[in-house]
Parts: sequence; structure tokens; C-alpha cells
Amino acid sequence: MPETNLRATNVKRADPTPPPTARLLVSCPDRPGIVAALSRFLFARGANIVDSQQHSTDPRDGTFFMRTAFHPEPAAGDRAAFAAAFATAVAEPFAMDWQLTYGSQPQRMAILASRQEHCLLDLLWRWRRGELDCRMELVVSNHADLAGDVAAFGVRYEHVPVTPESKPAAEERMLELLAGRVDVVVLARYMQILSGDFLERLGVPVINIHHSFLPAFAGADPYARARERGVKIIGATAHYVTEELDAGPIIDQDVARVSHRHGLAAMARIGGDIERTVLARAVHRHLADRILVHEGKTVVF
Amino acid sequence: MPETNLRATNVKRADPTPPPTARLLVSCPDRPGIVAALSRFLFARGANIVDSQQHSTDPRDGTFFMRTAFHPEPAAGDRAAFAAAFATAVAEPFAMDWQLTYGSQPQRMAILASRQEHCLLDLLWRWRRGELDCRMELVVSNHADLAGDVAAFGVRYEHVPVTPESKPAAEERMLELLAGRVDVVVLARYMQILSGDFLERLGVPVINIHHSFLPAFAGADPYARARERGVKIIGATAHYVTEELDAGPIIDQDVARVSHRHGLAAMARIGGDIERTVLARAVHRHLADRILVHEGKTVVF
Amino acid sequence: MPETNLRATNVKRADPTPPPTARLLVSCPDRPGIVAALSRFLFARGANIVDSQQHSTDPRDGTFFMRTAFHPEPAAGDRAAFAAAFATAVAEPFAMDWQLTYGSQPQRMAILASRQEHCLLDLLWRWRRGELDCRMELVVSNHADLAGDVAAFGVRYEHVPVTPESKPAAEERMLELLAGRVDVVVLARYMQILSGDFLERLGVPVINIHHSFLPAFAGADPYARARERGVKIIGATAHYVTEELDAGPIIDQDVARVSHRHGLAAMARIGGDIERTVLARAVHRHLADRILVHEGKTVVF
Amino acid sequence: MPETNLRATNVKRADPTPPPTARLLVSCPDRPGIVAALSRFLFARGANIVDSQQHSTDPRDGTFFMRTAFHPEPAAGDRAAFAAAFATAVAEPFAMDWQLTYGSQPQRMAILASRQEHCLLDLLWRWRRGELDCRMELVVSNHADLAGDVAAFGVRYEHVPVTPESKPAAEERMLELLAGRVDVVVLARYMQILSGDFLERLGVPVINIHHSFLPAFAGADPYARARERGVKIIGATAHYVTEELDAGPIIDQDVARVSHRHGLAAMARIGGDIERTVLARAVHRHLADRILVHEGKTVVF
Repeated sequence: MPETNLRATNVKRADPTPPPTARLLVSCPDRPGIVAALSRFLFARGANIVDSQQHSTDPRDGTFFMRTAFHPEPAAGDRAAFAAAFATAVAEPFAMDWQLTYGSQPQRMAILASRQEHCLLDLLWRWRRGELDCRMELVVSNHADLAGDVAAFGVRYEHVPVTPESKPAAEERMLELLAGRVDVVVLARYMQILSGDFLERLGVPVINIHHSFLPAFAGADPYARARERGVKIIGATAHYVTEELDAGPIIDQDVARVSHRHGLAAMARIGGDIERTVLARAVHRHLADRILVHEGKTVVF
Repeated sequence: MPETNLRATNVKRADPTPPPTARLLVSCPDRPGIVAALSRFLFARGANIVDSQQHSTDPRDGTFFMRTAFHPEPAAGDRAAFAAAFATAVAEPFAMDWQLTYGSQPQRMAILASRQEHCLLDLLWRWRRGELDCRMELVVSNHADLAGDVAAFGVRYEHVPVTPESKPAAEERMLELLAGRVDVVVLARYMQILSGDFLERLGVPVINIHHSFLPAFAGADPYARARERGVKIIGATAHYVTEELDAGPIIDQDVARVSHRHGLAAMARIGGDIERTVLARAVHRHLADRILVHEGKTVVF
Repeated sequence: MPETNLRATNVKRADPTPPPTARLLVSCPDRPGIVAALSRFLFARGANIVDSQQHSTDPRDGTFFMRTAFHPEPAAGDRAAFAAAFATAVAEPFAMDWQLTYGSQPQRMAILASRQEHCLLDLLWRWRRGELDCRMELVVSNHADLAGDVAAFGVRYEHVPVTPESKPAAEERMLELLAGRVDVVVLARYMQILSGDFLERLGVPVINIHHSFLPAFAGADPYARARERGVKIIGATAHYVTEELDAGPIIDQDVARVSHRHGLAAMARIGGDIERTVLARAVHRHLADRILVHEGKTVVF
Repeated sequence: MPETNLRATNVKRADPTPPPTARLLVSCPDRPGIVAALSRFLFARGANIVDSQQHSTDPRDGTFFMRTAFHPEPAAGDRAAFAAAFATAVAEPFAMDWQLTYGSQPQRMAILASRQEHCLLDLLWRWRRGELDCRMELVVSNHADLAGDVAAFGVRYEHVPVTPESKPAAEERMLELLAGRVDVVVLARYMQILSGDFLERLGVPVINIHHSFLPAFAGADPYARARERGVKIIGATAHYVTEELDAGPIIDQDVARVSHRHGLAAMARIGGDIERTVLARAVHRHLADRILVHEGKTVVF
């Protein structure tokens, strides 16, 4: 095919898919020798460190954080022994909190949504085109509106209506659907507040997108309040959900410029683009095991 | 429903829909009296100017540009007389190029796409939720891959394959589908170059998204070349298509930061978000009659 | 001089200086005919509108805002008559609030500073290179530290120390220096709170830079609180000062990205760049008579 | 002093100054065991790794890059032995390119400037307030204009005029001033092209700021050409200087939005802010030994 007829080669010349890596997330009191012990442990088992980042809150008596990706992954049958050896040889001597995950075992995700579809569809699109490395288990919504959109992706859709009276029963139903069945839950503009009891029994991280630049305009109706205050920039914040509303650890934020010309509808339109982008970035990093939480804040590697 | 159970009122409190406005775009040699004549003409016909912007390339002997939105629109039966009166009373004395459009008559749009779906789906989705004020007439693609996705939006899909041999016939077929039937064509990562003859016979504006920060990396494979050069920022450019490849008037551009950590696949993922956002912004402004072209550049009001 | 020895022509090929323009700022209840009346008035006096922007808070029964720049300016001796004619012919019939200023009469500015120099030096330097169209009357500081830096710009420096006991006397001294002698006061990281009485007797706009993305982290120590909360973006806000601390109308804002790697010193360093940029932009727009205040918010044309 | 009189505590509550760290930059063919060997070497000598970042161009057969900061630094008298031991024990077995520097020994910097002062003054300000960790040895200019500004900082100023005829002699004079006396040279809008011979004999890195978003508008007059092309975003690029003009490894870039309203002077004003910010960031990273160059591109840790 002659070059002159081609706007661009239509063949996607992506990088060859890298092999799956194991990821080790650790935090512990900082002191000399951590990296040496950890890297020696991996080298002795034939693992090559392909990516590693570390952070210390203070060069003197701080807390140490590290994310190390290595390959090859231990074979499935060897993982328990590998983890036990790591616990004994490295984690315990340094009093580490740690987590070991495998790129070949993607997390199972559920999305909760209400009526607004922009964040939900954006996540489903990205998942379908391979940007989000997860198994998309199901979508739960307190409204039936988006059932058709979700079905088009071949993803299970469960309608769990919520009224003030039915809320406890609704949370029970959601726990049946989710607890033990997913590794992470994403709130894609889900408009119900989850109870502390629900969060505790769910037992996995929950990521929310708030349509403001937290801590400004926490709570309801942030665009209306931003417009009322006359701010020149609006934002969105992805954070882990804690029992205290809109106060959980912030994962990512982004902003866009507005002016007196933007009414509430224009702000919602512009803000919607930020919301879906920030939420997708936060989910992407969570799925890549790049986030540690410490004292109500995140370290994002 | 008690407030405490609500994350936010789920009712969209959008601004009340503004009434449709007529839009007058003019350009002419700058001289005193243009605004006075134009505003007097509108006032005498009971029209209220709801938005107006102007620009002059030079305070002395420059070219004057203006976009004025007014309402109410003249009644459908009165528009020919209204336009004729404007031509006589205002446009001719000032030697204006001008265009008069009506918000109540949305433009008819066609989208051309190939295999990549992110820009196409983003436009269709924005159209469905009411962000793009147009009639979505059809999608034409040189591949069959996206037929199902487009069907889900209830939009006609035409598959017109293109090979070097069939290109002239393919362009004929596309002209049958498009010429006289649409007011604007959007290339949503369409990977075939359109001939100058096609563009001329099509006779309506064509908007393209190029996945680089033009004029850097014009032509094919911009991400690969950006990575090769080691740039720290990648971009996308929406522009009107002219016969000279990637050299038409730029409508909008945006960028994102990259680093040595981003391989080609990551660049394409990050860049894809910019592409769809920039293309949507450009189409949005075009549909709102906010763009004038002058000496190969745009004035975007 | 052969081309090959030149990195670039060192001659500044700036646009020829545009002639000074008169600026008319108006706000009034929106209704048809405003633009027609105003432009007819100017045209009848031989004035050419070189820039004009308008905004209406609502197409139905909103408030109308407009900034119109025209030239030539009325001659100095004709300005009182010009203004009186405008009042009678245009302003009163439409119940306008209005302001008429002349580019040939730059505003007189004072800057208040404390010990941090970055915002102060940035303003002085922009003034010296001609970016800020004003007369730089004096700098007042509650510390002596920056006297030498200010002297290097040939600008008067007054040291007015402030202690809790001396504060009333200090404000009296500052009023002697400022009231009736300047048209605008800029707080370039001035660390004392100005009393409501002082603001009222000063009688001119006061612009402040707050080193946070207001309304987040209003009050003291915003970087420390931003770090404590773990935000991923920090900002700065330029606003008009009102008696209520950090609650005045916002003129401009901007942000920068931070992460867990940034300690307080790094945040202050990164934030300092935003502070001086945002403050300079706000002052630039104020001096160009581009800002109207309405219901605690700004319209910035 | 009562809290109510204080806008903010005026005491800079910066992080306590961290102790100086030694920095090890290495690159080598990637293979297992690099991190283990390097961290074991440091641990055995009582050094704590306080920051470490690594990158590999490919998980299979790529090139490995690493920056490791550790403390305490070896005592001045022990550094030669320390380096020799590292060479034998770690660098040679892994075929490393490497560099070992000490935070307690700041680099010696020279700045070259012409007539435009914004980048020069910005660097001097930042140096004076402690943002740039270097010894400011001298400023060399081919014009005398800025001698007074530089003198105010207590920095030596050398005027070395350049004409086409005198250029070889001028470069000789500059080599006398610089070669062996500085560790890095920064071109702060220096308007003469440096010859390949000069660069070679100078023998230290040279950082330049180009006022465009390279590779767009390489060469002279980028703002004029950007305006001619009608771009919507302008930029600046800091890069290492190589003999090929404007083609050296890019260190950092940034951009700002422009429109049809911005003439050449406005573009230069807006661009000037980007230039000085990007140049300062690039110099900051260079001084912190955060940059490795590989195949014409930078890895910036």
C-alpha cells in the first residue's frame, strides 16, 4: 500500500507487552539496610527488579515506603513459601507492613453508580480497551437507568434501589453481591452515602470521585457553591472512602479554569471531564499497586 | 427523604435552558461605526444582544471580527427578509464578510472514523447527553469494527472500505453520502488522507484531530517521534482540514506531561485523553458558530 | 552581520505601541438597546471601539456588564463635558453604574510588603520593564529588610513597624502615606491584617495574594495545612481585600502539582512561583480596568 | 503578640535543613543484582539510602539507570578510597557509567546573558534566597547593560563583546574565564551561538533556554513564527547545548495558552514567565544531580 495514501500506519505499534511483574509494597521505620536486605532477598531468588521507588518522611527517624516490581513472578505453587520466606528474612527484622501482589492475578472490581453515566462509561471504555488491568465483576446501581449501557459491555448489572427506609436492607444486599467477591469498589458518582458498618464489612478499598477540589466544597453541590464563591478554577478529587464524609486519603486531583461566563451547566460539563479523568487515573494507579496510605495521606509511586 | 442519606441531591439543577439565539459572524476592514450600525440594526428589530465579542488585528487599519448572539431569532418566515435588510443596511456599507445562523437550526454532522474508537465514542456520547448541539447524521468508516458501538447510539453507520485502488471510488461513495447532506464533517482519528478534489466537492468544513502539538511532529506516528526526541510534553491539535496535510487553521490544542517512564503505549493512552478532549472542544465551538478563519488562522470567540 | 553568528536577532521586534485608549466599564439591568445607545454615543463623537466585551448574568432579567475600550481619548480639557454627556445620554436612561478611565493617566500604586521578597520584587521588576502600566509611588513595609532592594528600583520605601500596641498609630501613619495619594494598594505577602476602619478610610481597592487555593485553607499557614491534608495540588489566589479575612472577590487563581515528595520548604518554593505569577496577572488586569465586582464576585474581561 | 493581629506567623517554619547527601548516578546494562550489590556496598559502609529512583528502558536487555542519595557523606579525606572501592566492588562488575557527587560541595555556576534580563535576574534571585544550591561564580555578557543589576547581587560581571570578527577572540576570553573554573554554564537568553570547539574545550554541561516548545519553531524568532502559524499554546524548552543548534537533550518544557488576542509583545511577556520558570527548574534539577543523558534524551529523577 503506497505511503501517500496513508495518513498514518493504522497498525498499533505499541511496545511489546511487558511480562507480568510481582509488586512488593512495604512501609516501616526508616533505618540503614532496608534496601540491601530486600534486594538481596530478591536477587538470591533470581528476581530482577524492574522498577523501584522509595520515599522517607524524614531522613532522621522517618517512615520508609517502597514499591518494588520484580520479575519473574514466583510460580503459583511457590508463592506461599516465597511470602513466608520474605516475612521471616526481611519483613519481621524491619517491622514492615507489607503487601505482595502479582500482575498475573488482576484485581476484581465492582463499580457503584447512580444516574450520571460519564464516570461509569469512561471506566468501562478504558477497561474494554485494555487500559485498566482488572476483572470487571459487576456494576451496582440504585437506579435502573444505565442497565442498557452496561449490558453493551457484557458486564453484569445489579439494580439495588435505596430509600431511607430500605437503606439497611440495600446495604445487606450489596454486601451479598460484593463482600468476598471483589478486591476494590469504585464509586462512579454514586449518590448514596455508605455507612461505616458497610465499609467495615465490605473490607476492601473503596475509591470515590468528588466533584470539587477538596477540601474546598466538601459535601453536596460543590459546583453551585463554587459558582456562588466566584472561584476561577474548579476541580475534582479521587480519594479512598472513610467513614468521615469526603475526608479520606486523597489519591489524585485535577482542575480546570472557569470564568464568569460559565453557568452551572457549563461548570458541570467542564467538571465532568475532570471527574472522569481523575477517577480513571486513580483507579489505574490503584490497580497497579502504586498507592500506600499513611496517616490519612497517600504515597503514590 | 432526610438530608443525611443523600450524598447530593440527585436532581440536576442545571441552569434553565436559554432560548435559542441567532448568531452573526462578521469580518471587515476596521473603521469607526461598525458596532453602532450593527447594534442599531438589531435594536430597531427588537433583538437583544445576549453575547458579543470583537477583535481587531490592529487598532489602525486592521481587520475587524465580531460575533454577536441575539434573541429572539427572527421567525422562520422572516429570515430571508431579515438577511436581505442586514446586507443592504450594514454588510454592504462596511464591506463585510458575514454569516447568519440560527440556534434553532442545529448543524448536521457526520463523523469519519477508522479503527480507534476513543474520539468517535466520546463525540457520540457527548451528543447523546446534549453537550453537542447538532443532528448526528451518520458515521462513515473504512473499517467495520465499530458498527456495533455506533448502532448502540442509534446512529447510521456506513462502511466504505478504502484501498489504494478503490480510493477514487470510495471518495465518490462518501460524497454521495455526505455532499449536500451535512454541514460539517469530523475526522475522529480517520486514517485516510482526503484528496483536495474530495474536500472541494464536499464543500463544508472538515475538522481533524492530530495527535501531536502541531507544528511539531506533523505527519505520521507523532508519539513515536515524540518519544524518540525525548520531549517532556505531548499534545493534540484540532484543526480545519486543508489540502496541505496537517497545515490547516488550528482551532484548539492541549498538552500533557510525560517522562522517561512513559513508553509508547503509555503515551498513546495519555495522549488519547487529550485527543478526545481537544476534538470535543473544537467541535463544540464550531457548532456554536464561534470560529472565524482569516489568513490561515482562527479567531475563536 | 552574517546570519550564522546570530542565535536570534537581538532587536526586540515588539508590536508598535498602541495608542492609549479610554475605557468605559458599565453594569446595569439588562434590556435591549444598551449596546446600540453606547456605541452610537461613541461613534457620534468620532471614537473607534478597539475592544469590547460584554456579559449578562441571565438572558432574561439579568445584570449586564460591559467593558469598551475606544480611541482617541477625549482631549484632557474635554473630559468633564464628555462624561457629563455620557451620563445624561446613556448612563441615566439605563440606570448604569459606570466608570470612565484614560490609558494616558496611569493609576498610582503602592505596595505593602513584609519580609518575603518574591512577590514584591516580581512586581517592581515587571513595572520597570514596562509590563505594569502604573506609577509606582512607594513601598511600605513593617520591616526594614527590603529597603535596599526597593531602592535599587528607584522607588520610595517607607518603614512602618507594627506591634499590637502600635497598630492603630501605624495605620494612621500608613493612611498619611497612602490616602488620596494612590489609586490602588497591593499586598505583596504583607503579613499584617488591615482593619476595617483602615480599609474604609483608605478608599481605594486593595489586592492581596493568598497562598492557597481559596476557599480551601483560608487563614494562616496554608502550605502546612495543605501538606497535613495530603492534597495533590497547591494554589494561590489573588483577591480584593474586604473586612472579612480571605473572603473578598477572587480575581485570579492558579495551581501547581505536588506529591508526597514535597516537604514544606519545597511547597513554599513551588508555591512562591504561583503566588508571584497570579498576583502579577491580577494587578495587570486591574490596571487595565478589566475587572468589575458584583455580588462578591468578579467579572474579569 | 496576640494571634488576631497576625495574618500569619511571619517565622518561616521550613523543614529543618536536611543534612547534605552524597549522590550516586549510575547507568549500565540491566541485569539482576545491581540494586543488591549497590545497596550492600553502601550498607556495609554505614550509609543510609535516603532517596533512590531507578529506570530501565526495557525489562529485557534494557539499559538501567539509578540515582541514589545517601548519608552520611564519606569524610572529605575518605572520598578517594570510597570511590575506588565502589569502582572495584560495584561499577566494574556491572560495566557502569557512574558519577559520585557530594551535597556539601556545591557546583560552581556561570551564567551567560545578553540584553534580556528576565531569566538572569530570576536565577540570581533564586540563588540569593537559597533555592539554587551552587556557588555563583560570575556572569558573562556580550553587552554591558546588565552590569548594575548583577552587581547588586555581589556577583562578578564580565563584559565580553562579540562581533563576527571578534568571535574567536571572544570565545578565547570566555574560556579563560570559565574553563576549569566552573562546573556548569547556564545560557539565560544568551544570543550568541557557541562554537563546537568552544563547547568541547569548555568541557562542562551547558544549559540553554529556548523560547519555543521544541522541536516546533527551532531556530530564531519562535514567537513570531508561532503567531504566524496561529498556535493556541506557546512554550519554552530547557535543554543541554550540543553542537547541533536547538537539538540537545531536553531537560524540561512548559507551556501557556494564547489566543488571537495576543500580539507579539503579549506573547513575549507570557512566554518570558515560562522561560524563566522552566530554566530555573532545569537548573535546580541539574544542581541536585538528578539528570542522566542517554542517546540524546534525558532521564530526570
